[in-house]
Amino acid sequence: MSSARPVPFLKGHGTENDFVIIPDPDGEFELSKEAVARLCDRRAGIGGDGLLRAVRSARHPEARGMAGEAEWFMDYRNSDGSIAEMCGNGVRVFARHLVRAGLAPAGELAVATRAGIRRVRLAADGGGVTVGMGRAALPAGDVRVTVGDRTWPARHVNVGNPHAVAFVDDLAAAGPLREAPGVAPAAAYPQGVNVEFVVDRGPRHVALRVYERGSGETRSCGTGACAVMVAAARRDGADPSADGNPVTYTVDVPGGRLVISEGTDGGIEMTGPAVIVAEGMLDPDLLAV
Amino acid sequence: MSSARPVPFLKGHGTENDFVIIPDPDGEFELSKEAVARLCDRRAGIGGDGLLRAVRSARHPEARGMAGEAEWFMDYRNSDGSIAEMCGNGVRVFARHLVRAGLAPAGELAVATRAGIRRVRLAADGGGVTVGMGRAALPAGDVRVTVGDRTWPARHVNVGNPHAVAFVDDLAAAGPLREAPGVAPAAAYPQGVNVEFVVDRGPRHVALRVYERGSGETRSCGTGACAVMVAAARRDGADPSADGNPVTYTVDVPGGRLVISEGTDGGIEMTGPAVIVAEGMLDPDLLAV
Repeated sequence: MSSARPVPFLKGHGTENDFVIIPDPDGEFELSKEAVARLCDRRAGIGGDGLLRAVRSARHPEARGMAGEAEWFMDYRNSDGSIAEMCGNGVRVFARHLVRAGLAPAGELAVATRAGIRRVRLAADGGGVTVGMGRAALPAGDVRVTVGDRTWPARHVNVGNPHAVAFVDDLAAAGPLREAPGVAPAAAYPQGVNVEFVVDRGPRHVALRVYERGSGETRSCGTGACAVMVAAARRDGADPSADGNPVTYTVDVPGGRLVISEGTDGGIEMTGPAVIVAEGMLDPDLLAV
Repeated sequence: MSSARPVPFLKGHGTENDFVIIPDPDGEFELSKEAVARLCDRRAGIGGDGLLRAVRSARHPEARGMAGEAEWFMDYRNSDGSIAEMCGNGVRVFARHLVRAGLAPAGELAVATRAGIRRVRLAADGGGVTVGMGRAALPAGDVRVTVGDRTWPARHVNVGNPHAVAFVDDLAAAGPLREAPGVAPAAAYPQGVNVEFVVDRGPRHVALRVYERGSGETRSCGTGACAVMVAAARRDGADPSADGNPVTYTVDVPGGRLVISEGTDGGIEMTGPAVIVAEGMLDPDLLAV
């Protein structure tokens, strides 16, 4: 054992998109790429799809300019240690941690992220957490998704990142999804694409599977669920910006249930679970990489 | 949040075979199959290949008879919540926890398991942990291991559980091992079989990949490493029971390094790392399943 002092941590998830959380109010922990990868390693470390470091905005060079509006900065990293901008499931878990730990009051909360300020709403006593996800764009042009010898027409939706949303008869039809589905035309997605397969479960209620670029099939994808909601609304003839009526869908992902609304200003709000499952101390040797 | 009190836990691993540990000296926690599966879930829970509950032998009906010899009982469960007997990597991590927490003195330690008493040896200040793994049997008869269109001769070794050990030129030759290798004749293994692929790394130094029945390819398998050590010793003409000389091999597994000795009485001892990476409290809601 090292004589360095233990480092506090929590583990939590939103619809089974899971995170290691490191509370670091004063920005003391220099978490190297290697240390983050070790912490997110599911066998040698704690395990997570990513890491959320909670630093006061005033104490982090990337967030100082947002400190007047958002006290806390979400330093979000991918599981390989690389820098990431924003995560709709992650910011809910981040907000849950702040309120649970007494670091922020329940109700409305602004969180600084590398993608700018995100507004979050949650009750003190649990329940869902709501986060503003921005607006969706629906570029024109047909796209198609292919798995094996099956091809489906798809809708191109951009929610800060690019998606191809294919409505299918049966979620199993896409098979085991061990490889990325084919998406055509490739020119529609110069940065790659996340692919969603969607079935109807009832009125304004859908279920999806998602293949995330760089990650494979996952239990949940917040922007993917928002892309699916907007694609389903347009398919069903609902456009809040044009109609003047907000629209709400229930979107089931493999890891749980999200409720997603599009307002008359085009703003999308996603509400879903955010659970802290454990908290404790890391052996400092774990970070000595 | 529930009003139930938090439950203490640790997470640790031995050669990246990882475990959730629940200290429960008085046997208070009735851990249902479902609760264990939830705790071992890598996204919704803590995550582990299995769970080790540390109960005083006198306080557990399955261990009371061993209480005079071994103060602590390792209640070991598979990640699906089912009961398991013994795990060579797990018992090292279990012993590390006991000594680290001051529940047992360093040095020689007897641990009660469902497979009987296991003797463990460890220093107070870290380093490897040594555990007695019993004796190996080498049933006669040729066996063969097949992956795709390649077939290798193999050695049948039983270390409490059955193994087929194939020496190969290159560990990559077995491919991605997404499915169980074929083993023939099937009648040699009525209970199924674990398969090891082995290459030489130097004098009395080998490296392996392992496919565990029911689990797939894993980062480490303690009994598999012992089976490989014995198969390599026999291939190299060393038989401690016949020769009167103990033999020691270094066995690299994907998750780390083990050192394995066979004594003149045929007893196998395995020495390897055992690391506690974190400890803390579980949210009691996690167990309410």
